[in-house]
Order: sequence, then C-alpha cells, then structure tokens
Amino acid sequence: MTDPLLVADLSESQLLSRIFPLLPHGQATIVGPGDDAAVVRAPDGRFVVSTDVLVENHHFRRAWSSGYDVGWRAAMQNLADCAAMGARTTSLVVALVIPPSLEVEWVTDLARGLADACALHGAAVVGGDLSGGENVVVAVTVHGDLEGRGPVLRSGARPGDVLAHAGVLGRSAAGLALLEADRSAVSPGLVESFLRPAPPLDSGVDAAVAGATAMLDVSDGLLRDAGRIAAASGVVLDLEDPYVVLAGDVAALQPACEELGTDPLSWLLTGGEDHGMLATFPEGVQLPQGFRAIGRVKGTVVETSDRQTWTGSIPESPMTVMVCGAAPTVDGPGWDHFAG
Amino acid sequence: MTDPLLVADLSESQLLSRIFPLLPHGQATIVGPGDDAAVVRAPDGRFVVSTDVLVENHHFRRAWSSGYDVGWRAAMQNLADCAAMGARTTSLVVALVIPPSLEVEWVTDLARGLADACALHGAAVVGGDLSGGENVVVAVTVHGDLEGRGPVLRSGARPGDVLAHAGVLGRSAAGLALLEADRSAVSPGLVESFLRPAPPLDSGVDAAVAGATAMLDVSDGLLRDAGRIAAASGVVLDLEDPYVVLAGDVAALQPACEELGTDPLSWLLTGGEDHGMLATFPEGVQLPQGFRAIGRVKGTVVETSDRQTWTGSIPESPMTVMVCGAAPTVDGPGWDHFAG
Repeated sequence: MTDPLLVADLSESQLLSRIFPLLPHGQATIVGPGDDAAVVRAPDGRFVVSTDVLVENHHFRRAWSSGYDVGWRAAMQNLADCAAMGARTTSLVVALVIPPSLEVEWVTDLARGLADACALHGAAVVGGDLSGGENVVVAVTVHGDLEGRGPVLRSGARPGDVLAHAGVLGRSAAGLALLEADRSAVSPGLVESFLRPAPPLDSGVDAAVAGATAMLDVSDGLLRDAGRIAAASGVVLDLEDPYVVLAGDVAALQPACEELGTDPLSWLLTGGEDHGMLATFPEGVQLPQGFRAIGRVKGTVVETSDRQTWTGSIPESPMTVMVCGAAPTVDGPGWDHFAG
Repeated sequence: MTDPLLVADLSESQLLSRIFPLLPHGQATIVGPGDDAAVVRAPDGRFVVSTDVLVENHHFRRAWSSGYDVGWRAAMQNLADCAAMGARTTSLVVALVIPPSLEVEWVTDLARGLADACALHGAAVVGGDLSGGENVVVAVTVHGDLEGRGPVLRSGARPGDVLAHAGVLGRSAAGLALLEADRSAVSPGLVESFLRPAPPLDSGVDAAVAGATAMLDVSDGLLRDAGRIAAASGVVLDLEDPYVVLAGDVAALQPACEELGTDPLSWLLTGGEDHGMLATFPEGVQLPQGFRAIGRVKGTVVETSDRQTWTGSIPESPMTVMVCGAAPTVDGPGWDHFAG
C-alpha cells in the first residue's frame, strides 16, 4: 500500500489540473475558469450575488465530514441564498484554503461534492482561488438570474400575509447533536441532514413567481430568521403552534429526542443550517407546492419598547415572534458565529 | 487605559453594525448588504467575476501588515483581476474569517482599507460573510462591467504583437525581502509596495479600448505570467533586455539590492504581487498612457518538445519566454502557493 498523495506533493497547477475537469459547466458561462476572471451572462441586466464561508472546526470537522460533504454543503448554503431572493443560480466561484498535509483525494472529493450540488441545479463553477493555510476554509460566492422578476427581499411582509415554510426544520441541528454525542447510528437520516443538507431550491423561484412578499432561507434558526423578516418589514409575525404546523418535523426529530432526552422545540425553533425557504404571501394566494402555512403577519409595530428579546429560553407555545422596526437583526437564540 | 475591545466581546450583529457603515456604495448597486444576497446592475447583459483569497501567515503577517493594509491589498488584487479583463469593477463581496481574540479595531481598520481601495475606483462592497476561525482569511469576489467590449483574454496574443507592461515590477517582492530581513527602513517605498500595492487599474480598461489582444495582471511574477499568455495563445514571447526596458524598476530596486546583496533581475522577473497589467497589442497601435513596450510576440510554436521549463534559475538576458500550446500554466520561478 502506498502513502496517500498529499497537497504538498503537487504544485498548484498540478492540483488545479485534477480539480478543473470535475467542475460543472453551465449555460450562462461565456468565459469559464483559467483566465484572470470569468464572464457570465446576466440576461436581464442584473445579477444576484451572495457569499458564504465554511471554516474547519467551526462549521465542520474533518472527522465527521468527508471532502464531498463539505463541498456539497458549501454549495448548498450558497445556492439557498440565491433561491431565497427568487433567483436561479447561474454560477459560482470558490476560494479554497487547504493545509499542505491534506490528502489530494480529500480535495478532489470536495470538488465532486461541490460539482454535484451545482449540477443538480444547472449552476456552473466558473472560477476559484487556491491557497495554503492551517485549516480548511471554503468561501463560495454564488450568482443568480432573476429572470426579469423583482428580487424577493426580507422587507416586503405586510399585515395579513401568510407566513409559510418549505423544507425541513431542526434536522441539521439534531444531526449535529447526534454526531456530537457519538450517536449517529440512531438516525443516519438526521446526520445526513447536517452533513448534506438538501434545501428546496426550486421553492425559492416558485415562491417568487407566486408573488411572495418577503423571503429568506432559514440558516440561523426559525426564530432568529423570522425575526429578521419581522425587523426588516416592520411587522409582527405570529407563529402557530409548532407541534401542529410542524408536526412532520417533530416526528422526524423523535428518535434523536428520545436518545438524547431533548425537547424537539429547541431544534425546531433555533436549529440552523437546514436552509428551508421562509416566505410571506398575500392572503388568498395559493401556496406553491412544498410550502406549508405556519403563521400570519400581524399589524405593524411602532413602539420599539414592544421589542421582545430572547436570551436562550424557548418561549411558550403558541408564541409570537415579535421584532419591530429598524433593528436589522434580532438578539435571540440561534446561530451566532462568535458565541460559544 | 482600558483593554482593547475584542471580536469575542461582540455578537456577530454588533460587529457587523460597526463594519456596514464603513463600506462604500456604488452606482451599480440595486440591493446592497443586509439581505440574503445583493443585486447588482450588469448593463450589457454580462458580468466579469473573479475571486482571490489572502491567508494570514501565508500572504501576510499581522506583525507587518495593519488591518488597513490587508483590506487594501485584498481589494486591490481582486480589482486588478477585473481590470486585466478590460472591465471596470462595479462591486465586490467579502468572506472574512477572524479569530475571536482579534481586536475589533483591526477588523474595522480592514474594512476601511477595503473601502478606500474600492471607493478610489467606484466599486461598492455589496455583501459579505463573517466567521470565526484560527487565522485571518479574507476571500474577496469582484465583479466588473465590460461596457459592451469583449473580454481581453490571455489567449489572444498573435505573432507580431507588441508585449507591453503598465505598472511596476519587483517592488512588492523587494519590499517583502526587506521586511523579512528586518531592513524596512532602507526603503519605506518598497515596503509600501508590498503592504499596499497600487496597480494601474485604469490601464486595464485603456488597454482594452486600445485593442489589446491579450492581457493579465502580473500576480505571480513576470516570467510565470508571461508564460501564461504564451501558453494560452500558443506563441513565443521575446522579452527585451530587462536592464534596458525595465530600467526604472531596476533603479527603484537598487537600495534593496545594495542592502541585501541581491541582483535585481530575480525580483524583476519572478517577483509577484505588483499586479501591473501585462498586455499584447497589434503592431502599430499607439500604446495607452502608462504602458511601455518590453518585448515582442514571435511565431507560433507547434512542438510541445520546445517547451522550456525553468526550475528557479534566471535565464541569461536577453531571454526568450517560451511556452507553447496547450499547457495551461508554466512550471517556472514565481509564486507557487504550496511551494516553500
């Protein structure tokens, strides 16, 4: 048996020559990888752009995640940002930092995961940058096409709108908890939700077409992200009883709840990284396939003193997610990348 | 005296609220930072995109570079990629990884450096992502507008074309050498070239307008990057005597050469990160302001056996930068991010 080939054994161009052939092409690509920059079509004279980074030992551990998992997740969390604007992803670029001691196979595996996630949605990888570093860092920037529609922002929710969600909730957090407790055998499906999330990306475009007034993808937890819509729109969101409207998720979390002695509500409301689409629709609109109504947009709040701040405890159900006015974010439970 | 405020002392949203106001707006921005994604104008139905990453202890050391320096450099190396396509930068996004022990002032200083470099060229910062990590990583993705022109690729050089360069050569490498030898007082100007490069970005657009047939920015050294044009175009590049055509750079490097006992040729030919524009122009074209002719495109090479590989030594002057055909890169001196 020979020693595995390491990043340090190859020159940058040798490594790139193993990665480039794995990357998917796309119809929007005019100039692909290999020059100073790529050139991408933006048919309606605008493009959507977002960037998201995954950092080893902060967002993933190599002991749990394969290169493929990390590449898949890096792509998916970015594709979800694009979808949440109502855009179809055309292309992405990747800045990859890797330690010289890393196996080359891990890097090509990452490229395969990234490529498969992109290819599933017709997105091309049009460029990248490679650097040495102490830990793996994957910074992806994604570009989307609004196809002539207006972008669906966080700020458009209006009183009377229906709050709806497509995708799953709490699964990624439950999967992570199982991994941390070394109990992944209890529910490989939940662990898979953490390692390779499968957000309903088409639902983002469907929601935009159906006339969604506000949308985001749930990356930091339902409460925190609903709070962002509420804050940006200056409205109050009333969430219906999660045990009723999210019964499917409650059931899916049950094996992990029993194993770890956890209440499902914490994962449902504050678990991040499932990247479902949370959107508001005008009353009477038929919700696109995949969306379920989970609440209602209530009247506008004018007094900032009404602002309710969570500090980690889960409010009683039924609850009110209430954030007002100008505050761009809500201090509540959910993911904070600098908190412990 | 109070202890400096650290990243760990703030929540993510508190930190972002200190960064957002520092970022420059731009005329191409339709939706700026704060939503899932930004929306940027692409008036001619295409956009140019490139990504480049700076990693602590690989591309910079915090002992030498201030936050401002790192932000400036991260922006400039990306702006240069856009310029080298003949595009005007409209916008960029930034993924920033920072250790919790970092001072908040260092981070806001980085934002100021990034902002100043962008504002100088009318580019907006339209989005970003922030994460904790062991070391600072700054991954910037830049977008440019070709204003109806075709992109200037590496592959368009034709026999008879003039090879020309705008900007400086060897300065950044000499500045780094002075820092490494703890001799920065010998030439603060050279050290500044390393810490805050000032590439001639307008020259990229000027070259495109003047009809440049091929172009890139010199980020990995003149020989290596000229080799990339030669390889992509399937031509041979004859560089004239550097002591003649690059006399200004030779003179500028002199103080560092004397102090460190170095020959300027090594820095001139293999020193990277000055980000000057290296372009080829049809014979007879008047070179845009800032460009100096440094060589000539010779006949097409058809035999790959003609390929000349450098392994670190500097060829005799006058020399031939000769790389042929299909090989996407040249193995030669210059920057390799995984080499020692």
